[in-house]
Amino acid sequence: MANEVVLLDFEMSPFAARVRIALEEKGIEYKSEVEDLSNKSSNLLKMNPVHQQIPVLIHNGRPICESMIIVQYIDEVWSHKPSLLPSDPYRRAHARFWADYIDKKIYPIGRNLWASKGELKESSKKELIQCFKILEEELGDKLYFGDESFGNIDMAFISFYSFFYTFETLGNWSMVAEFPKLVEWGERCLQKESVSKSLSDQKEVYEAALQIKQELGIE
Amino acid sequence: MANEVVLLDFEMSPFAARVRIALEEKGIEYKSEVEDLSNKSSNLLKMNPVHQQIPVLIHNGRPICESMIIVQYIDEVWSHKPSLLPSDPYRRAHARFWADYIDKKIYPIGRNLWASKGELKESSKKELIQCFKILEEELGDKLYFGDESFGNIDMAFISFYSFFYTFETLGNWSMVAEFPKLVEWGERCLQKESVSKSLSDQKEVYEAALQIKQELGIE
Repeated sequence: MANEVVLLDFEMSPFAARVRIALEEKGIEYKSEVEDLSNKSSNLLKMNPVHQQIPVLIHNGRPICESMIIVQYIDEVWSHKPSLLPSDPYRRAHARFWADYIDKKIYPIGRNLWASKGELKESSKKELIQCFKILEEELGDKLYFGDESFGNIDMAFISFYSFFYTFETLGNWSMVAEFPKLVEWGERCLQKESVSKSLSDQKEVYEAALQIKQELGIE
Repeated sequence: MANEVVLLDFEMSPFAARVRIALEEKGIEYKSEVEDLSNKSSNLLKMNPVHQQIPVLIHNGRPICESMIIVQYIDEVWSHKPSLLPSDPYRRAHARFWADYIDKKIYPIGRNLWASKGELKESSKKELIQCFKILEEELGDKLYFGDESFGNIDMAFISFYSFFYTFETLGNWSMVAEFPKLVEWGERCLQKESVSKSLSDQKEVYEAALQIKQELGIE
C-alpha cells in the first residue's frame, strides 16, 4: 500500500506547525487540507470526533490526533530517518517531560495573556514570564533543548516562536532583553528549512491576534 | 549497578496509583516514600523542582516526573516483561490518545465536581458524565481498553476507579445504572493483584473528599 499522508491543517496553529516540521524532518510527502475553523469540515468531525480539532494526520485512511502524539507516531513509523526522540529511556522521559510542560503551559497561559484583560491578563503575563525563565534555564548553553541536535522538545516549543512578538508586545516586555538565549535558539532553529517553511510570520500572528481581540471586544 | 527504585508517593493520588500499578505489573521492587503534601520534603522539591508534585520515580538517583511519562519509562527500561503499550505504532498512538484524554479531562473536571458548588459544580457534573459516556463507548464490549489485555489506557483510567463513588454520590447519579460497562471493567481490573493492592478504597476517598470540602468551606 502506498503511503498516503494527509494533514488536516491550519497555518497559524502552533500545534499543526509541529506536525508540519516533523513531516519535513522525516522527508515525508503529504497533502495539507486547510480547515476553516469557524466551519469545520465533515471530514475533521469524522476523523477527530472527540476533540474536533486540528491537526489530524490521516495515514492511509486512519486518523491520528493530538500534535505530540502525531509527532511520536511519525517518528515511530518513519524510523529509517534519525529519531526525534533520544534512544536512552531516561533521556526520552526527559524529552517527554519538557514537551509536556510546554503543552500544559505555553498555549493556555499565552492565550490568557493576549485574549483577556485586567487581572487575568496581568497574572498570565507573570506566569508566562516565569515559564520562559524556566525554559531558558533548561536550555542553558546548549544549542538545542535536545542538546546537539534538534529534537522533540525543540519541536514542541519552536511552534510558539511565531507568538513571541505577540507575547512581548501585548505583555509589554522585550524577549531579546529578558530571554536572549531563547531568542537565539529560535533563530538557530529557523535556519532549518523544516522549521522556516512550517512557521507563521511573527507579525502576521500578531495581526491575527489583534483581529481576534477586536472580535472578542477586548481593548 | 543495582536497580534502586524509590517512589515519592501519596496513597490516594490517582497519579501515584498508576505508577504503583506499573511497578507491580513489571514485578519491580521499590521503596515507597510517602509525602506529606502540606509539608513537602526537601527531596521532593529537589527531585521535581518544576512541578513540585508527586509521583516522582527515582531510579538509581535520577528523577522521572509526571505519571504517564513514568509509566512509559518503566515500560521501556523493564522491557523483558510484557509491554504496557502495543507494539504497532498506530495502536500505540491510539493508546496514547486515550491516556491523554483521561489526563486532560477526568482529574480537573472531577475535582471541579467535588470541590466546588453552584454553577461550576453543575457544569462539571454534565461534563464528567459526557466524558464517561465517551469512555464507555470507547470501551464497548472489549474486556479492557487495551482489548484482550490490561494496558496503558486501563492504567491511566483505573486509578480514577477509587473516585467513582465520590463522583456519583456528590454528583447524584448512579455509576452502575448509567455506566454499567465501566463499572464491570473496573471490577475486572480489580481482580488483578497489581491493581487491587495499588488502589485506595472508594469509601475512604469519599471521606477524604468530604474532609477537603469542609476545609474549603463548601457545604
